[in-house]
Amino acid sequence: MSEVAVYGLGSMGYGIASSILKNGHKTIGLDISDDQVQKFQQQGGLKAPIRDLSNSLDVVVVVVLNSEQTRSVLFGEHGIVPSLKPGAVVISCATVAPAFAREMAKKCDEVQVHYLDAPISGGSVKAAAGELSVMASGTNAAFSAAQAVLDAMAATVFNLGDQAGAGSAMKAVNQLLAGVHIATMAEALTFGISQGVTPEKFVEVISQCAGTSWMLENRAPHIVQGDYTPHSSVDIWLKDLGIVQDIAKDAKFSAPITAAALQQFVAASGQGLGAEDDAAVAKVYARNARLKLPGDK
Amino acid sequence: MSEVAVYGLGSMGYGIASSILKNGHKTIGLDISDDQVQKFQQQGGLKAPIRDLSNSLDVVVVVVLNSEQTRSVLFGEHGIVPSLKPGAVVISCATVAPAFAREMAKKCDEVQVHYLDAPISGGSVKAAAGELSVMASGTNAAFSAAQAVLDAMAATVFNLGDQAGAGSAMKAVNQLLAGVHIATMAEALTFGISQGVTPEKFVEVISQCAGTSWMLENRAPHIVQGDYTPHSSVDIWLKDLGIVQDIAKDAKFSAPITAAALQQFVAASGQGLGAEDDAAVAKVYARNARLKLPGDK
Repeated sequence: MSEVAVYGLGSMGYGIASSILKNGHKTIGLDISDDQVQKFQQQGGLKAPIRDLSNSLDVVVVVVLNSEQTRSVLFGEHGIVPSLKPGAVVISCATVAPAFAREMAKKCDEVQVHYLDAPISGGSVKAAAGELSVMASGTNAAFSAAQAVLDAMAATVFNLGDQAGAGSAMKAVNQLLAGVHIATMAEALTFGISQGVTPEKFVEVISQCAGTSWMLENRAPHIVQGDYTPHSSVDIWLKDLGIVQDIAKDAKFSAPITAAALQQFVAASGQGLGAEDDAAVAKVYARNARLKLPGDK
Repeated sequence: MSEVAVYGLGSMGYGIASSILKNGHKTIGLDISDDQVQKFQQQGGLKAPIRDLSNSLDVVVVVVLNSEQTRSVLFGEHGIVPSLKPGAVVISCATVAPAFAREMAKKCDEVQVHYLDAPISGGSVKAAAGELSVMASGTNAAFSAAQAVLDAMAATVFNLGDQAGAGSAMKAVNQLLAGVHIATMAEALTFGISQGVTPEKFVEVISQCAGTSWMLENRAPHIVQGDYTPHSSVDIWLKDLGIVQDIAKDAKFSAPITAAALQQFVAASGQGLGAEDDAAVAKVYARNARLKLPGDK
């Protein structure tokens, strides 16, 4: 059994930390929210200060929001990497640019710490069940050191090669598609309303036709139910499609459909819907065409 | 057994006509291409001139390109509807605006001919196998009169209500999604290439992740194989997404993602790729970023 630290106890990180704990590893959870930290301690998480544990940790899992936070927890003022023992491994799960992942791997390597570029997919329900998909790349040594914890958190681990960055590249590709598909589902569903197609009929028919997508089948029911409890929020897509656009621009790659979808999420956030479920991007379309969605008065 | 005329023996219509014939109905196939007509006659299609058959026909299936051609075969100079017997049914399969479907139904009703608004989905392979999906709406009398032929041509018939136009509305919704998903697949696949993700790895990983779509799984392999033999052509999307945009504009419905996708197909057609498989929209992205696709020299 390993000693593991999990940075970030949000909807994904808490589920990951719990899955690792359930698999019998000594696990400490860290978060800027004391409530989340205490909740995890009550569930069985380690209570020791992280500075007392750092040189015995085998694995550090980083499930924070973005590259800035990842850099901070790894190499900031209280960054963990300099105090890790040689041979420990960082499993880095945030959606980041491939170049950032390569930089982190290099800095870890300088202190003999392994780095697994390991963005995740699957949502909070699968995180809690230990059934995530992980798009991972890194050295064989990094994979070996991470194996027991990957087994605890994931149903599927894609091995995308021995170079950090490949995992993040595939994640960016997946996010491009997932974000565009959510916004397109909203565009099509509300276009349907304008033509007399009810949201219920939309889900029933389209999910059996060539126009379907994984995201459509997952998110369109939220609109049918008028339930915008955030599983994944509108603002996540400002971040993730923003990362895609940044990477694309650096590569001089023109991505006009991604750009159009991103602007619809920006409009949703601008309308005050940033913390709602991402299916709320449908409200932008509905307001622009004076259409009623289920649950509207 | 019924007497049936099928207008349009293209990739969809020929398969439909053959499926109807195989089910034992007397079937005449009509097309502007004499070659197609003779090919169908050799397969067992009726050889009589259509004017000798028109008043004994039970069912007319219209599988032409658009509303203009539909109007022409039904009510043009040699239009069939005025010479049909009362109680005959028109099964209209082209992708058209809902308002056009309502107009055709009204004109048929004036001469006691039933009209089934019945756009189709599934591609030429399913057409040939008699396994299409049909998004149908019309009176109960229209459905009854069409039943035997629908059974011959379709695996699934969605009954979308008793008003012509509802079928075409659902088809427009489906085409919006399908067209955007093809172009987004191309955007994501080529973006992946720019980040070191091979097309093979793209298909392997993304088809198991939240970013997948029916169209991605169907079309991305064409790019992997470098095979742009048209199953459905680039130019089909100039037509179908153009219809979606026309309907949307009439309804004052803003559809920016559809607009962005349509422009990528327009660019593909402008580059001379209009008759290639619709997956060739990936070549627009590749050229814009100087990337190589499989099969490129």
